[in-house]
Amino acid sequence: MTSGIAAGTEAALIETAHALADAARDAILPHFRASALVVDNKQAGGFDPVTEADRAAEAAMRAVLAQRRPDDAILGEEAGRAAGTTGLTWVLDPIDGTRGFMSGTPTWGVLIALADAHGPRYGLIDQPYIGERFEGGLGRATWTGPRGGGALGVRGTTRLADATLMTTFPEIGTPAERAAFARVAGGVRLVRYGCDCYAYALLAAGHVDLVIEAGLQPYDIQAPIAVIEAAGGVVTDWDGRPAHAGGRVIAAATPALHAAARAALAAPGPAEGG
Amino acid sequence: MTSGIAAGTEAALIETAHALADAARDAILPHFRASALVVDNKQAGGFDPVTEADRAAEAAMRAVLAQRRPDDAILGEEAGRAAGTTGLTWVLDPIDGTRGFMSGTPTWGVLIALADAHGPRYGLIDQPYIGERFEGGLGRATWTGPRGGGALGVRGTTRLADATLMTTFPEIGTPAERAAFARVAGGVRLVRYGCDCYAYALLAAGHVDLVIEAGLQPYDIQAPIAVIEAAGGVVTDWDGRPAHAGGRVIAAATPALHAAARAALAAPGPAEGG
Repeated sequence: MTSGIAAGTEAALIETAHALADAARDAILPHFRASALVVDNKQAGGFDPVTEADRAAEAAMRAVLAQRRPDDAILGEEAGRAAGTTGLTWVLDPIDGTRGFMSGTPTWGVLIALADAHGPRYGLIDQPYIGERFEGGLGRATWTGPRGGGALGVRGTTRLADATLMTTFPEIGTPAERAAFARVAGGVRLVRYGCDCYAYALLAAGHVDLVIEAGLQPYDIQAPIAVIEAAGGVVTDWDGRPAHAGGRVIAAATPALHAAARAALAAPGPAEGG
Repeated sequence: MTSGIAAGTEAALIETAHALADAARDAILPHFRASALVVDNKQAGGFDPVTEADRAAEAAMRAVLAQRRPDDAILGEEAGRAAGTTGLTWVLDPIDGTRGFMSGTPTWGVLIALADAHGPRYGLIDQPYIGERFEGGLGRATWTGPRGGGALGVRGTTRLADATLMTTFPEIGTPAERAAFARVAGGVRLVRYGCDCYAYALLAAGHVDLVIEAGLQPYDIQAPIAVIEAAGGVVTDWDGRPAHAGGRVIAAATPALHAAARAALAAPGPAEGG
């Protein structure tokens, strides 16, 4: 087994990532907001547009990889692991934010990461309905959207009192995790809920400062890690260790804000001075 | 003072509503996601992109009305009431969902309603960044977006157990209102938070089934009332009375679901059978 990304291959790998995202878009969009048409079938235990879209998009992405990168490994939400020989793994979450997808909210996304033995090296977050794409790693840190595009870059926020915090909570996590989250939420300027992977994109683009989640899978977080790190931010688990295996994740615009949020998560006590 | 909408003038009034929405879009979009650039100024007490966008958009809409409908009254979030002589009032909320706007999330919107003495007769919900517009009343019930458009129409959901519920909660409302909301939330299939006025558009388009809010102003709810009623849904206050003055609002896809949600809001007790 060779190891990692050979010099000079970055552009081709990025091109493959975009081909994956394009294939996922085409597979998913016919199903988005189709639930209004099939809700009665679904209630009868039949057709589920989210599952259909998830499976179709992952199959489409695996077909692209079979053609372009047949020797890389794959880890996908729907169809699991496929072994490879290059030391590289494509980590795929065809629809991150299925509850957002089900409710018609365009804050779900397609997550694509390219990882080596050390973790994600490149990540892409795509919102097909809006037509937005955020990518970071292998020398890139850029976004494109319906009204233009530009460079990604986190804000300089260092204090909880100045921070905007996003999360999928209060819907996920254990009671203890929700209590820890509430300690952080009580100290920030603004809390927003329910944005799924779009929250990480907004952090990388400099619009929010903190994202705190729990119960994540590797395919939920590897693309956001690469995008946010490329934009200058910090992503770890709640204990400050690498987060690419999932679990409890904290992403922050700056190391100082990351430390302040970790301290609030860790222990009840006097509020951070922020 | 004459009263209401003269026969044959509907098309011109709808054209005016779209001109207002177009003017608001142009005024707002330069400010959206500009906060990343000015956060340091804002922290120093200076420039606030939300306020700037709010004021610019309402001024732009009032300029359109001065030209096209100078005799109608205006009720706007930013600049208050202007008297008229036609019996018609344009009710304007240039940015509904300022917290979403501040965090870069494209779920805020421009709300435009046309009301007579009985309440809103026509409403328009516009999301400028995505490029989506939802309108209802005066014979219309339609939406247009980046990937097409079509007719608005609510779903047929009648039981809480099958319903998707959206709200801005847990961020707003009194403790008693939050407790009442929690009784409904505990009985539904899915709860989504933080979507501002976009939630009402998703209800009218048949993607969610319930929206419950509190603490609303008239300009927050008049456009959603018209859009949802045109799509076949039901909007009242929590006591079942007209909601166009604001306050505590419940919007539902069907009368049966509306009644079930109102019952859960009103009293602690055994869960609805759903």
